[in-house]
Amino acid sequence: MNNNNPINVRIIPSLFTLSNLLFGFISLLLTMDGKFKLAAGLIILSALMDSMDGKVARKLSVSSDFGKELDSLSDLVSFGVAPAILTYQSMLQAQLGYWGIILASIFALCGAIRLARFNVLNINTYFVGVPITFAGGFMALIQLFQHIIPWPVYAVCMIILAFLMVSTFKVPKLSK
Amino acid sequence: MNNNNPINVRIIPSLFTLSNLLFGFISLLLTMDGKFKLAAGLIILSALMDSMDGKVARKLSVSSDFGKELDSLSDLVSFGVAPAILTYQSMLQAQLGYWGIILASIFALCGAIRLARFNVLNINTYFVGVPITFAGGFMALIQLFQHIIPWPVYAVCMIILAFLMVSTFKVPKLSK
Repeated sequence: MNNNNPINVRIIPSLFTLSNLLFGFISLLLTMDGKFKLAAGLIILSALMDSMDGKVARKLSVSSDFGKELDSLSDLVSFGVAPAILTYQSMLQAQLGYWGIILASIFALCGAIRLARFNVLNINTYFVGVPITFAGGFMALIQLFQHIIPWPVYAVCMIILAFLMVSTFKVPKLSK
Repeated sequence: MNNNNPINVRIIPSLFTLSNLLFGFISLLLTMDGKFKLAAGLIILSALMDSMDGKVARKLSVSSDFGKELDSLSDLVSFGVAPAILTYQSMLQAQLGYWGIILASIFALCGAIRLARFNVLNINTYFVGVPITFAGGFMALIQLFQHIIPWPVYAVCMIILAFLMVSTFKVPKLSK
């Protein structure tokens, strides 16, 4: 952590991270209201915020362990819990009933396992398994095309992405 | 981390932690269904699981950084996001409208800030600020008495607990 920066500069990346969490949280409220496309849009906005916080922190030389922890916590809500509940509520509940709960829970739990493992490994040059931001962002994106994509695609994508999140193959990082 | 234990022993504490997350996740689904008391009960069950994982890990001598990370992630869902959305959906939405969203968001965001800070501080003998398990558990508990507690109490408790979570006073740990 670089402590030479004034406090107002040091909190800037965390503001992006908290926006990520806030949008994920509001996405959940929109899902409850049945506004599924708006809820998906908020998750995509969260992904945008998530792609900014790390870049801003490195640019301002204010990367911190606190920022990393906050990032993981926000990611689980915005890209694990919010897309799982959105997909369940908008589709799986009607089509699969209780099996839909099991599917959605597996997605969220695998997301948490992935984040916990990645934090402990502390690797900065590549990802182990598919990042949760990609998995959750993808589920939100295909939600926008619900009128043309048949529902089993969502169930299959969800289970494949859950598996890929906890898998151990290496995925190169696109951004530095 | 103690690596001398067989893999099946090492994962036992994480099973409690994942149960904590699972119950928090299902609590969100129950809130969406309008089953508010059941949703509150699930959060209290999450708190029970949360009180077990650390104890079990220490008893089996299998405490790990992975377990700690997973614990924080689960806590944000079960004691930050789930109680905030439960209180909003069951009460604040009807009484406060958009202000209810702001209140609920502040609770969830303060919970995340608290968890991120506590993880970085890495203190084992006392808490800094009120633990999120207490804050979320308390909001779930008073939900069970909705018929006798007037709604402003929930709004006030929520904002006070949010503040106490990010405050910096020391709270002694009851369990070792």
